[in-house]
Formats: sequence, structure tokens, C-alpha cells
Amino acid sequence: MRKFKLTIEYDGAGFCGWQTQAPNFRTAQSHLEDQLKKIFKRKLHCHASGRTDSGVHALGQVAHVKVDTPLTPVIIQKALNAFLDKDMRIINLEEVPYHFDAQADVLTKTYRYIILNREQPSALWRERAWHCPQSLNLVAMRKAAQYLKGKHDFTAFQSAGSTANLTNAIRTIKKLSIIRRGEFIHIDISADGFLYKMVRNIVSVLTAVGEGQVRPSQILQFLKMKVRKNMPASAPAWGLYLLSVQY
Amino acid sequence: MRKFKLTIEYDGAGFCGWQTQAPNFRTAQSHLEDQLKKIFKRKLHCHASGRTDSGVHALGQVAHVKVDTPLTPVIIQKALNAFLDKDMRIINLEEVPYHFDAQADVLTKTYRYIILNREQPSALWRERAWHCPQSLNLVAMRKAAQYLKGKHDFTAFQSAGSTANLTNAIRTIKKLSIIRRGEFIHIDISADGFLYKMVRNIVSVLTAVGEGQVRPSQILQFLKMKVRKNMPASAPAWGLYLLSVQY
Repeated sequence: MRKFKLTIEYDGAGFCGWQTQAPNFRTAQSHLEDQLKKIFKRKLHCHASGRTDSGVHALGQVAHVKVDTPLTPVIIQKALNAFLDKDMRIINLEEVPYHFDAQADVLTKTYRYIILNREQPSALWRERAWHCPQSLNLVAMRKAAQYLKGKHDFTAFQSAGSTANLTNAIRTIKKLSIIRRGEFIHIDISADGFLYKMVRNIVSVLTAVGEGQVRPSQILQFLKMKVRKNMPASAPAWGLYLLSVQY
Repeated sequence: MRKFKLTIEYDGAGFCGWQTQAPNFRTAQSHLEDQLKKIFKRKLHCHASGRTDSGVHALGQVAHVKVDTPLTPVIIQKALNAFLDKDMRIINLEEVPYHFDAQADVLTKTYRYIILNREQPSALWRERAWHCPQSLNLVAMRKAAQYLKGKHDFTAFQSAGSTANLTNAIRTIKKLSIIRRGEFIHIDISADGFLYKMVRNIVSVLTAVGEGQVRPSQILQFLKMKVRKNMPASAPAWGLYLLSVQY
């Protein structure tokens, strides 16, 4: 039995998230496993670094798959890319030691959230960025971001409905940058792990700070109160990209 | 009677180009005119700066429309954006003097061509950039671009099938830049006007130069021979964006 590590790009617009659900739901995992079945003639399980929600994009989702095969990684990658729909591509495929685990071995995950910050919405970015027409104060947003960096209990930034372990909401944000690129704002967040909708909840609070509705120092109160109360709703899925997973 | 200037963004993937064709062809012009009809209760003609081909995107197509109405530009823009499908947005709408002509008054048009220059194709850029996996020599491409700048007879860079005036293929390229942005290459071209598929034919030749199949100085021969012979096929439509039109 051999183990392969797949790096996967997908357009979240056409998938009901990563994880396989009931039949007839087109998810990234089920679409990928369907193609693996065509190549290997049996049902294989693709184990990802973590789930992504419906509409969330991935530029570098990572998954592992175990399979007994004489095929080379290059051949498997070519075959998969030939079978997959065009809204999913295998960017890299390599053989890894059998002890590698795409979920348990994660050191850092990096997400990007893209905001389109101009008055008019965009035809081309309609499913790729969150349209925020109001002017945003990036200095205040960066000040707020400072309070989020480091090791904290992020319970207040976790949405309900998660099946993850709710008893441990302590995570470490290693990097949080807010950069303006023309009409766009990129919010990049790296952490050792993320709670359910944590990036989208951080982005909505940072955006509220940028609009002047929330003071940067209120972030400290949110972290301390450990409950989602008087906080803005999650930012939409379509602005979110899983950029990379480090091991 | 009043005249309005519309600046239009559209995702070319869902349109059979700008110009209205037979019914059942979803074109940018027909989709826009259908919404104008809903607002003004009569058929209005939208006159654009020029056509875009099927699959070509626009970030700043310009068109004018004549209509007798008491509505303000802001109201018309809001109404249009409410009626239009999400793959088309009116970015700006303003009243202009009656002599303004979106096509005849063009001083300069600027196009961007986006190449995704990495080994693997992309799920997210599949209809937004041309995937060129081979390594490209940008120094050679920029050298070739120098020969294209200025006033020339671009007959060799015009595809057959145009209904435009074939007797005058003299155009002036005012700007031609080739910039690498991470995995992408942006080729920006400004000119007083463009022949049929001229940008895509320039891009395919520049890419052939980048691959080493064509020498930069051969551009001079292409310009002189004034016929499409031994030249690479046009670059695909989905990498092309009409960025802006200057008056």
C-alpha cells in the first residue's frame, strides 16, 4: 500500500463544500473520489487537511489517499486532471511516507479573504470576492488585528453548528496581514488551526472596525467574553480561499 | 432626447460576444437592451465603443444610449443593475452632451491579456486566463514588443472574417507592456484602434517569441509582409479583457 499527497485547487462556486454529504450533493471530496474510482476501479477515501464550507475556494487544499498501485505520481496526476471537471485541478501529487496524515500533521494553514472595496459590484468577481462598497479604515483594521495575533481562546469567533471539539477553542494566529491592492483588500491569516467559520468571523469584525462600527480595542472584549454576542454576522463564503497547508 | 454614457463590466464566459446576433444567442448587447426595455418600455439601441468576441471579458466597455426620460443617471444605473444578471454590471452611468459617440469619439482603447504561466492549469482561472505551461523569456518578448509600438500597417495581425474596413489597417500602438505578476503575465496594449483579433494575434506572436520559436526581429518581417502566413494561431478569447476606453 502506498500513500499519496494531493494538492488541490477548486472553484468553490460549484461545490457544496469539501466533505461528502448525501448523494446528489456535488462536493469537492465526492467529485475527487469519483475520479479516483474511475482510475483505480475501487472506492478510495480522500482525507483532507480539513473541510471547507460551501462556496469557499481552495488554491492549495491538501489531502492524502492510500492505494495499492504501480502507477507513478505523474501518471496519477495526469489521469485525475483528465477526468476531473475543469473547476478542480490537482496542482501537485507526490508519494509520501506512510505515516503522513493530511489532517493530523498540519502545522499551519493559511487563508486569504478577498474584499472588493469600491462603490459598484463586479461582474467578474461576483463569486470570488466580498463586495464592501463603504470606505474602510485600514489603519484601524490593522490595529484590531494586533489583538488577534498570538495564542487566544477564539470561542467568540466560532460559529454554532460545528461538529468540532467545542471544549478547546485555543488557537494561535501566526500571521494576520491586511493589504490593499488597487480596488481589493487581501486579509491573509495563518494559524495552527481554525474553528468553524473563524476566518469569516474575524473578517466581518475587522470590516466592522474598518467602517468605524467597532473600536479596535473591542477585540479584547470579544476574546474575553467567549461567546458570540453583539458581533457582526460571518463574512460570505465566496471571498474565502484556502491558500496553503504547511506540514 | 437625452444621451447617457454607460461603463459596463461583463464576464465574457456567458456571452456570445458584445453584438446582438440571431435570437437565442445571449450577447452582452442584447442582454443589456433587454433590461433597458424593461425600464423604458421600448426597444432602445445601445451603441458600444466596438465589439468584443465571444468569451472576451470587459472591465470597462463603454456604450451610449439615447432616451427621452425624466430619470436621473443614478436611478437608471440602479435599475439596470437590479435587472441585469450578475455577470454584467454597470460601473458608471452619466449624462453626456448629445454629440458624444461611444464609437466614433474613441481616442484610445486599452486591453489586457492575462497568461497563467505555470506548469499546472488552474481551476479558478479556467475562463479568465490563457494557460501557458512553458517557460517564457520576457526579455525577448519585450524586445519584440518594441517593434510593434507606434504607427504601422497591422494587416498581418488581423484575422480573416472581419466586417471592418480591410483597406485601412494602419493603427498606432501607444503602449505595450509585459509584466510578470507572480504566476501571471499581464500584456497591456493601448492603441487608437484595433483590427479584428489584433490583440490575440499580437499575444500569440509575443508568446511564440517568449518560447523561442520566433525571433524578436521577425516582427518586422510580419509587419512588412502584410499577410497572415506562418504565424501562430490567435491566443484564446478567455484571457482577453477590454480594460478601458478613453475619449
